[in-house]
Amino acid sequence: MRRTHTCGELNKKNINQKVKLCGWVNKIRDFGGIAFIDLRDRFGLTQLLIDSKISSSAYELSKEIRNEFVLQIEGEVLPRKDINAKLSTGEIEIIVKNLYILSKSKPSPFPIFEDPTQTNEELRLKYRYLDIRRKQISSKLIIRHMATQEIRNYLTSQNFVEITTPTLCKSTPEGARDYLVPSRIFPGNFYALPQSPQLFKQLLMIGGMDRYFQIPICYRDEDPRADRQPEFSQVDIEMSFGDKEDIYEIAENLTKTVFKKCLGLDIKTPFLKMSYTDALEKYGCDKPDMRFDLQFVRLDEILKNSNFAIFSDTLKKKGSIKAFKVEKASDISRKKVDDYTQFVKQFNLKGLATFKMQDNSLQSPIAKFFTDEELKQIKEKMDMKENDIIFIAADMEDIVNQGLDHLRRLLAKDKGLIKENDYKFLWVVDFPLFEISKKTNQLTSTHHPFTSPNSEDLHLLDTDPIKAKAAAYDLVLNGYEIAGGSQRIFSSDLQEKIFTLLNLTKEDIATKFGFFIDALNYGTPPHQGIAFGLDRLIMLLTGTDNIRDVIAFPKTLKGLDLMMNSPSLVTKDQLDELSLKTKEEVNINW
Amino acid sequence: MRRTHTCGELNKKNINQKVKLCGWVNKIRDFGGIAFIDLRDRFGLTQLLIDSKISSSAYELSKEIRNEFVLQIEGEVLPRKDINAKLSTGEIEIIVKNLYILSKSKPSPFPIFEDPTQTNEELRLKYRYLDIRRKQISSKLIIRHMATQEIRNYLTSQNFVEITTPTLCKSTPEGARDYLVPSRIFPGNFYALPQSPQLFKQLLMIGGMDRYFQIPICYRDEDPRADRQPEFSQVDIEMSFGDKEDIYEIAENLTKTVFKKCLGLDIKTPFLKMSYTDALEKYGCDKPDMRFDLQFVRLDEILKNSNFAIFSDTLKKKGSIKAFKVEKASDISRKKVDDYTQFVKQFNLKGLATFKMQDNSLQSPIAKFFTDEELKQIKEKMDMKENDIIFIAADMEDIVNQGLDHLRRLLAKDKGLIKENDYKFLWVVDFPLFEISKKTNQLTSTHHPFTSPNSEDLHLLDTDPIKAKAAAYDLVLNGYEIAGGSQRIFSSDLQEKIFTLLNLTKEDIATKFGFFIDALNYGTPPHQGIAFGLDRLIMLLTGTDNIRDVIAFPKTLKGLDLMMNSPSLVTKDQLDELSLKTKEEVNINW
Repeated sequence: MRRTHTCGELNKKNINQKVKLCGWVNKIRDFGGIAFIDLRDRFGLTQLLIDSKISSSAYELSKEIRNEFVLQIEGEVLPRKDINAKLSTGEIEIIVKNLYILSKSKPSPFPIFEDPTQTNEELRLKYRYLDIRRKQISSKLIIRHMATQEIRNYLTSQNFVEITTPTLCKSTPEGARDYLVPSRIFPGNFYALPQSPQLFKQLLMIGGMDRYFQIPICYRDEDPRADRQPEFSQVDIEMSFGDKEDIYEIAENLTKTVFKKCLGLDIKTPFLKMSYTDALEKYGCDKPDMRFDLQFVRLDEILKNSNFAIFSDTLKKKGSIKAFKVEKASDISRKKVDDYTQFVKQFNLKGLATFKMQDNSLQSPIAKFFTDEELKQIKEKMDMKENDIIFIAADMEDIVNQGLDHLRRLLAKDKGLIKENDYKFLWVVDFPLFEISKKTNQLTSTHHPFTSPNSEDLHLLDTDPIKAKAAAYDLVLNGYEIAGGSQRIFSSDLQEKIFTLLNLTKEDIATKFGFFIDALNYGTPPHQGIAFGLDRLIMLLTGTDNIRDVIAFPKTLKGLDLMMNSPSLVTKDQLDELSLKTKEEVNINW
Repeated sequence: MRRTHTCGELNKKNINQKVKLCGWVNKIRDFGGIAFIDLRDRFGLTQLLIDSKISSSAYELSKEIRNEFVLQIEGEVLPRKDINAKLSTGEIEIIVKNLYILSKSKPSPFPIFEDPTQTNEELRLKYRYLDIRRKQISSKLIIRHMATQEIRNYLTSQNFVEITTPTLCKSTPEGARDYLVPSRIFPGNFYALPQSPQLFKQLLMIGGMDRYFQIPICYRDEDPRADRQPEFSQVDIEMSFGDKEDIYEIAENLTKTVFKKCLGLDIKTPFLKMSYTDALEKYGCDKPDMRFDLQFVRLDEILKNSNFAIFSDTLKKKGSIKAFKVEKASDISRKKVDDYTQFVKQFNLKGLATFKMQDNSLQSPIAKFFTDEELKQIKEKMDMKENDIIFIAADMEDIVNQGLDHLRRLLAKDKGLIKENDYKFLWVVDFPLFEISKKTNQLTSTHHPFTSPNSEDLHLLDTDPIKAKAAAYDLVLNGYEIAGGSQRIFSSDLQEKIFTLLNLTKEDIATKFGFFIDALNYGTPPHQGIAFGLDRLIMLLTGTDNIRDVIAFPKTLKGLDLMMNSPSLVTKDQLDELSLKTKEEVNINW
């Protein structure tokens, strides 16, 4: 028995047609002799009318029916008296001739269609299949599908070829930790799940595939963080020849087409560009949210001779003093300022100084420490008007940046500076090639070791490598990094030099990347690429800040699947076959 | 510097244009003062003319150039004297003004563009990136891309939603062996890589997604076999409501659209259907190659009183006697028959009897054992004409089937019965629900434990389960199973019963599938699905019989990646973090 229509399809035009529908009982109301059922499927809701006078057997059966039962009905489309303008099917109802219960349902363990914040997320994850029945989840999965279809069609139209690369790879733990997969045929040997298809895509360029893309699943065994999942999806793009303008154009058009298709929005291209240095100077981070201003201003020069000890000491220690202004801040009370001061402490910023413009003069608990000239200069530099407030932080540059960045974003929220459905894209360019690892105090790649230095900075590799800029860029949307790209190294000598700067021994290089260094010697085209974090892009596209909302079956922060109860212990036979012994077996408390 | 065109793009219309091209040196010929280069990229080949009189520096530089160097050139399009009609660019050449060597190449470790059978496959796999430069590989990857694009677009047009399901799953080793992934956060616990997304897609149906698809990577840790890779791709489709006719239609249209798009071929639908029982009876296997006939005929009845001991003994032991006829077999000598007899021995068939129709009578070394009436009946039953030969096998049914099946396929090849570019599709339907495992002598699922029995066979589960047919079907193309589908069980009681019949204990069921049995209780729609083996489909589509040809970076039979040298030993730190000990560490001999 096949349905003739979905539950979202029928309208006035179908009146008097005989139809068959299938779906879930969204609601049932019995008025004695007459019952109404809202029948639901992914496509919509249709009202069924069961009249004991028309089909007494259907009416009798309807008494057994509870929410979430699965029904099949046959009936006729009739016009509806109480028209529901909110529903596409709101002008009709079906008078039921035959009714079949296809499947019953136990009472739901939580109220599926009520405010989900009333149910703790763990319970919803355990019964994820019920949670998916909510439009709030299913519609996000559908938008995810639309977006990936659009991405594939766009890239295909640009001559990119989607190529699947292996997921049982070699472990080369440079950045994050690898997930390992023991080999049974070769005891003691392991595959690793890919952190990205980096080497494979570069090899495809060496192989002459010219333009490649893929939407692979990638894996990082990192410690729990709110927006992280052990497995995640990328849109991975690589192309030969050309230059970064090609990548900008492709990434912009791809984004544009996705936003148009999924949200009907026209995104303006080309996107704004800002250097990494400027981003840090003006917004304290490399992924500034451009939906609001609140730009930082450096006050070092004005305050270099300040009598206020915290400021002068900071500058003596080569620290920085930066500030940003919030306009129309009469609602920011001293109490609020205290709260903000508490807030920035979690980011290691010891305090905040504030000046408020009131009655045309700068008010502040610390005003007495400043000369009139200093106050005048601050006022001018910050362009302060009545009721404006400025927040000043003084500390080492990175602490100032981190604290003010978080404060800036919090204030934008508190002051309602963020418009709904506003999407502000930004290319952050000219990243440094290296940074100093806090853990090892050695050079580490800002992006990854295959990123090319800017050609004019090549000489710095021998003299002052930390100063070298990379031909690398991030695409930032509303304060989130949604993509990162770069020109790749295509000379084996340069690649080897970078590995050496990263403190890999000759032997390490040979074992882990020897084959790749060799491959670069067989006619490697200049090539470049970019990868989008798909989960995050969809998150932004669907207006949620919970990454789990855009993944069909997500895991918890600790990587647990609460529905299937995995990971789990395995049998001794399985371990024996893999020649493995576990040193410890934790029983997970489900 | 961006290229203005690819190497496959320029023709007469571009004459006198100034262009920039990039690509690999396919061939260079120096005629003293003048050199010709064939420049190659994925899109084609363009002839460059370097004339020392036009650019002496380019000509000087050209002396360094070897095959597979990567060049960028600027020049002008000119008409060509010796037109090459085989090339899309064969009417033009580029007179080079400026020449840059972007990248050099060492001599290739094997002749890339010559007959690959001259190079052993292992060497080509080690340098896979060079092998990919061959059209024989790259064109297959491109067709693979076209096919998957077409599949995605078709399914999207039919309201299917592509949903990615987890790849870090729970180990429930029922069928094949799982690949395991140790959890670091929960020592001693493991994820498993999915053998298929079976449970997830069924849960999506319970979740009301209605129509789902995905092209996931799946994993089976099985022993080496020629057409097997540890990781492989599926086209996985699931839908709610409806019946198997819906699946047939969708699978047929999907196939039709792929063949049209990729090969320009019109495939006729609907496809032929044949029951599993008939397929075994007539072709000895459940995936008969329908490009040729050579149907089996059962001779039990005619030969039941035969004086030929092998035949009569076979029938006494409840064995079978089956035969097939090859027409116009005058070229099949006694020597050839001996070869075929040897051939079938590897499939446990002890011998073959043959009769050849010559001078209107049946000739055979064993003719004397048969009565005239028997010979007459054989002749009639097999409809034998002059020079026809029949091959007869007598043994237990499965051995007869296996032997004759292989022989039938060999003879079709030898006799040239297979037309080029012939694609014959067949639905094999009504598979048995269970079979007896040769290893455990217990019931095992023919497809998988979630397959629904045919409704009319439900009663057999209590009385004679091995006789029950499943609502399951395979799609067969030219003797290969390319897809398998079924109606799924959607009642928790029936699902539990099947698990019990499969000899799972109550506890096993609870630990492994408890959550799923529970899920079935919350309003599960009837649902059904099908999965295509993508690698195999592409293999058939691209006319190769080597599965590695359609995978960008394939592994060897033993699961080795010869290019990256993986799997590999990992560090003690990595194992410690996973609380693992290896009992043995094999050094792989690369």
